Amino acid sequence: MDRDELLVSLGKAIKTRRNELSLTQEKLAEMSDLHKNYIGMVERGERNITISNLVKLTVALNTTTDSLLAAFLNNK
Amino acid sequence: MDRDELLVSLGKAIKTRRNELSLTQEKLAEMSDLHKNYIGMVERGERNITISNLVKLTVALNTTTDSLLAAFLNNK
Repeated sequence: MDRDELLVSLGKAIKTRRNELSLTQEKLAEMSDLHKNYIGMVERGERNITISNLVKLTVALNTTTDSLLAAFLNNK
Repeated sequence: MDRDELLVSLGKAIKTRRNELSLTQEKLAEMSDLHKNYIGMVERGERNITISNLVKLTVALNTTTDSLLAAFLNNK
């Protein structure tokens, strides 16, 4: 499993979903109780997010972890 | 969201799935390229696992992240 590929794919899926909901990084940060800069790093695949922070994001984005990982897992 | 509750619930689900497959922690560690002691800590909810390590476990356990989180998320 390529860790960097996973993180970049996950970050893109988070950004896509955030844009679908017309949320800014600032707004998503507020909704998920995370820092705006942290969300930027996650969206660029620069942070290996913990499951507790990822669940906060999925709740705020009204999606699921598997949905956000689908593009990566379906490419395996 | 209660972080500790999430981690304990996730850890139990991982242990349950490992037992369903009759795998020891040692065998799962070998299959997922993680350390046996780390798997023990995750199963007890003592570690906030990163998404890259969680995906390694889901692949080895032939399951998905959402399945492992279901008990926690359905209790919200």
